[in-house]
Amino acid sequence: MDHAEFRARAHQMADWIADYLETVGDRRVVSGARPGEIQGALAGGPPEQGEAFDRIFADFERVIVPGLTHWQHPGWFGYFASNSSPPSVLAEMLVAGLAVNGIAWQTSPAATELEQVALDWLRQLIGLPEGFHGVIQDTASTATLTAVLTARDAAWARAGRSPVLSCYASEEAHSSVFKAARLAGFMPEGIRRVPTDAAFAMRADALREMLTEDQARGWVPACVVATVGTTSSTALDPLRAIGTVARDAGAFFHVDAAYGGAAAVAPEHRAILDGVELADSFVVNPHKWLLTNFDCSAYYVRDPDLLMRSFAALPEYLKTAADSEVVNFRDWGIPLGRRFRALKLWFVLRSYGAEGLRALVREHVRLAALFAGWVDAAPEWQRMAPVPLGLVCFRHVPGGMTDGPELDAHNRRILEFMNASGEVFLTHTTLRGRFTLRLAVGQRTTEEHHVRRAWDLARSAVAEGVRGHSGLK
Amino acid sequence: MDHAEFRARAHQMADWIADYLETVGDRRVVSGARPGEIQGALAGGPPEQGEAFDRIFADFERVIVPGLTHWQHPGWFGYFASNSSPPSVLAEMLVAGLAVNGIAWQTSPAATELEQVALDWLRQLIGLPEGFHGVIQDTASTATLTAVLTARDAAWARAGRSPVLSCYASEEAHSSVFKAARLAGFMPEGIRRVPTDAAFAMRADALREMLTEDQARGWVPACVVATVGTTSSTALDPLRAIGTVARDAGAFFHVDAAYGGAAAVAPEHRAILDGVELADSFVVNPHKWLLTNFDCSAYYVRDPDLLMRSFAALPEYLKTAADSEVVNFRDWGIPLGRRFRALKLWFVLRSYGAEGLRALVREHVRLAALFAGWVDAAPEWQRMAPVPLGLVCFRHVPGGMTDGPELDAHNRRILEFMNASGEVFLTHTTLRGRFTLRLAVGQRTTEEHHVRRAWDLARSAVAEGVRGHSGLK
Repeated sequence: MDHAEFRARAHQMADWIADYLETVGDRRVVSGARPGEIQGALAGGPPEQGEAFDRIFADFERVIVPGLTHWQHPGWFGYFASNSSPPSVLAEMLVAGLAVNGIAWQTSPAATELEQVALDWLRQLIGLPEGFHGVIQDTASTATLTAVLTARDAAWARAGRSPVLSCYASEEAHSSVFKAARLAGFMPEGIRRVPTDAAFAMRADALREMLTEDQARGWVPACVVATVGTTSSTALDPLRAIGTVARDAGAFFHVDAAYGGAAAVAPEHRAILDGVELADSFVVNPHKWLLTNFDCSAYYVRDPDLLMRSFAALPEYLKTAADSEVVNFRDWGIPLGRRFRALKLWFVLRSYGAEGLRALVREHVRLAALFAGWVDAAPEWQRMAPVPLGLVCFRHVPGGMTDGPELDAHNRRILEFMNASGEVFLTHTTLRGRFTLRLAVGQRTTEEHHVRRAWDLARSAVAEGVRGHSGLK
Repeated sequence: MDHAEFRARAHQMADWIADYLETVGDRRVVSGARPGEIQGALAGGPPEQGEAFDRIFADFERVIVPGLTHWQHPGWFGYFASNSSPPSVLAEMLVAGLAVNGIAWQTSPAATELEQVALDWLRQLIGLPEGFHGVIQDTASTATLTAVLTARDAAWARAGRSPVLSCYASEEAHSSVFKAARLAGFMPEGIRRVPTDAAFAMRADALREMLTEDQARGWVPACVVATVGTTSSTALDPLRAIGTVARDAGAFFHVDAAYGGAAAVAPEHRAILDGVELADSFVVNPHKWLLTNFDCSAYYVRDPDLLMRSFAALPEYLKTAADSEVVNFRDWGIPLGRRFRALKLWFVLRSYGAEGLRALVREHVRLAALFAGWVDAAPEWQRMAPVPLGLVCFRHVPGGMTDGPELDAHNRRILEFMNASGEVFLTHTTLRGRFTLRLAVGQRTTEEHHVRRAWDLARSAVAEGVRGHSGLK
């Protein structure tokens, strides 16, 4: 493809993306593709000769786009949102064109230094104290693994390799925390799930009991992970109480604020981070709720030297003349090569400003509260957890039905009915074993009428006889 | 930013990228930024109010671009190239606009299935046997860590956790291999560096001796890593011999072909993968030498179940109705969220076809051989390693100078002289302790005259008195 064709195609892509973003709300949120359908539609092997772009792009539109689930649809209420925004997309375009690799400071000083700048700006925005040093990771799963590996190595350095190491997180913590401990080589018995209170938040007293018990049998507490906004219900672990217990036990204290941390851009939500100064590391995902394209997970550490003791590697072929004067982020995590991810975050922070981001969070929290109010006021509908941020957990309990498989199946059918509309997409969880619908408000373009529509669909599901095993898929 | 402005800005970006790619060769390859200069040029905190895009973009051009090192410059000979190409950039634009997240098959069936298709096409192109199942990872460092963790868990399942586990790679293997073993928790004594032969390739006989010795003392060999194209000198470990030894010892056999594997698109280079059918896992980076934007590291495994035993996690909130019928790539690695990286690889494979990719590799290998020939023919210049692929290792040895710090410093000054031109960028390594210049031909737009210019600059460095400690930086 020569320069002239590239230029013409780049303009074609620009229009296609602009059209897509203007009309994504008219599409069905979830792809209707059947397993294997897309694979089946594509030829069995690579072409021998290169093909014209028109042919490739025609297949993109014919086969690929119908196979996509549209995360940028305003009716997106599933999981948590994976954010995006116009300035973020523009930055990603530039980054693709530049195609620089931030292996070391020298290999693009601006990539490294803008990452330092943007992450310090974000630190200020959410009220994280000075003394936290940021680096962008792909996901919170990776950031948490990075934290757990750092904690493990620090524990080994302290106590040797003989004792059993233990790691603590609430029973409501994200699966990535337990996966990280497993990958770090913790023995299964050392991976501890701390009980939660009525609001699904970790009980600091239970944590202290567990730690005391484990230390009494000679285990070494390596790591405590608290969550600010759990995935199931956005429960808020009490950081100050947990951090105090973790420090008393000499354990590394990691805070997983992947979703919830973003809310701290608004001063009225800042209390969710109370005690965060006790943390050794902290992660928040601008790609979840701060308008920045995935992947952009902001990982902060108190002590970069401790991090680098686990992650630095400096073979001769990577040494540069500037090494003693600069930060080389390749030593701050698993990968060596690094995309220029700071640009999109910087474009977003400047384009929206603190006020724009606060307004976004506030509107989503308002919409979630609105929906929660409808649930609370409606007979037979039940709210399953507090709604401190943008997520509402709820279910329908027909008169006389009690907890059990039948009630779970009833609510699963409501979920399927709602999603089958193509207008909204919700996902589910279980809370204390009960099947629970999750409405997560976090997509940039979601407005009140989208949330209202979700509620109408929920009630329609019941009205239209989902109760009677209608077989709706 | 409203729809109309986004559309206008997207066109502006399209033109900017097209201009950049047309003129990148006129820029100085390496940024002249001083440490801290970019940080210093940016304001101290995030703006309270959002800013107009014009202001942000003006700062991008004024502060950021001069701070970039231009990996897409045709005079790029450093490290290995980080590839890009017009169709790949177009795909990245679309991916940024779509902003879908491939957490599970359901969250965008096309993202998962196109990944299966594109990786199977790549498998066919490089002659990897059927029965290897591919998944895209960000980097080979992560893929190798994934392999080592899989190997560790398999060894634990086999032998329990008591014995010392051992891991083997050549002394010329990439730093990421030793880092992976460390992160996986291998004891330092269990991380073994196998001696190499005169061509810097792993000696299978030495590996067998080490394994025998280690097994005799009760260690459990968990993992053997062979390299196809080492970073220092593109040495080619003999896969068949090493794989046979690894299998005899019951160790997991991982092949790091991050750079070299791409060459196997050309049948005349296919021999470098001879014996690859013995591997349990294999990684090749299309972002290094197959025109695909970073990050795109293709990781192949023989036994996805073994991989998933280490990496799967399925909490309730991630379960979908399709789970039993589909592949969920979140269970194939560390991160949960996943960018839609398959699209760029698929655009590249279709745009260039097998012939286009073969032609690229052949031209780069030809240019490297040409440069090697100049080195071989020139008095006082010395080639430091075989040149099987696109990398030439060389140095200048003035009459009478012998190995030692003085000769190393002399060659370091040659490197600095060459890079100070702004026309080329080379990096260095050490081979058997000797400072060595590396000329890695792999940038898509590099032509013979660029390679010739590098050689002229090398000789100019000597002619212009670098020998006399000229102080050139």
